[in-house]
Amino acid sequence: MRVRRLKWAKEFLENANVVVQQPEEYKGKWNELFQCECIHLEIGSGKGDYWIKMSEMYPDIAWIGMEKNESVAAFAVKKAEIDCENRKFIQHDAMHLLSYFDKEIDVIHLNFSDPWPKKRTTKRRLSHENFTSIYKQILKDDGEIQMKTDNADLFEYSLVNILKEGFTLQEMSVDFRRETHDEDAISEYEQKFMNKGNPIYRAVFKKVVEVQ
Amino acid sequence: MRVRRLKWAKEFLENANVVVQQPEEYKGKWNELFQCECIHLEIGSGKGDYWIKMSEMYPDIAWIGMEKNESVAAFAVKKAEIDCENRKFIQHDAMHLLSYFDKEIDVIHLNFSDPWPKKRTTKRRLSHENFTSIYKQILKDDGEIQMKTDNADLFEYSLVNILKEGFTLQEMSVDFRRETHDEDAISEYEQKFMNKGNPIYRAVFKKVVEVQ
Repeated sequence: MRVRRLKWAKEFLENANVVVQQPEEYKGKWNELFQCECIHLEIGSGKGDYWIKMSEMYPDIAWIGMEKNESVAAFAVKKAEIDCENRKFIQHDAMHLLSYFDKEIDVIHLNFSDPWPKKRTTKRRLSHENFTSIYKQILKDDGEIQMKTDNADLFEYSLVNILKEGFTLQEMSVDFRRETHDEDAISEYEQKFMNKGNPIYRAVFKKVVEVQ
Repeated sequence: MRVRRLKWAKEFLENANVVVQQPEEYKGKWNELFQCECIHLEIGSGKGDYWIKMSEMYPDIAWIGMEKNESVAAFAVKKAEIDCENRKFIQHDAMHLLSYFDKEIDVIHLNFSDPWPKKRTTKRRLSHENFTSIYKQILKDDGEIQMKTDNADLFEYSLVNILKEGFTLQEMSVDFRRETHDEDAISEYEQKFMNKGNPIYRAVFKKVVEVQ
């Protein structure tokens, strides 16, 4: 998602309640911050629609949104005007996840991630092993990755790749919205693809616990 | 695929050269029959288009087609008029595979298998564990299952299910024909779906060798 650089973004993010300025301080104790044992993390929240809707639909779950682009993050945080105790935001790169989280995440959400179509940029895909190896370390033993995308290439790549990296396939759909899924919020971004008639691909992966 | 019962089918199949009348006699020695080490088996060959085209495209591979419906099988065999040394046909049910084959198949092909959509008929799907447990026993250690279908429900079910039964995902496509694949024959049946604009789903699974 491309947005023009917003001059007010930096200062706004530094002063927004919902933004966690020093996420490393909460490593291993996010459950204390939220007073909640079940923590979902969306990586690449974009303009925040999914993160906001889901945190309102599921008040008993802690929702952390994460977006590295400062201007996009500012959009998301501005949209989340009402302070909810069960949502927080981190404006940083997913490469730093290990500094922020211990084995404490229940579900990682990857929604409509950048497909990075060129071969030389494959490493930047959020389903590349550079990232999945990190996800394994911040997920609880029964943790999951839930991914959705409209991009066939990214979906195919992610399925083969994530399964190689110590996850099993729990659920898979090649056209998720052909049935109603009221349990899963539809972001504006997703609605745009649905309006075009594009199928929405979805997969749920479960972490394989390695026997010591 | 429904076809009306052909009165001539039984006698025709009993006298066709390409049909192996007693497949159990070749168990463990199909390579001797074919004088060929690489054996592909298509289960549910329908009217035989894929089996015939592939056996002509790949003369160095042995191609066994299999179809349980007598009348449909007769169609397939009739179509394969020219005798090719690298193709044979079995008119029997896949439930008997263990009687016919030892660990000697390189690739099992499942093309546009019956989706058996009703819950009570799930057991009849060729990707049900009743069958995949057999496939594991007749495949060589580096053997593969290659499946194609236009049916989203069957594809989703098969992916989750086959991966649970001791196979890994090698390749996956949610729209296989969006790129040209000259290496893979298009049957009339597949072409019909493509003409409707349906995406063709495809997956390749590799057998996981269990360490003794």
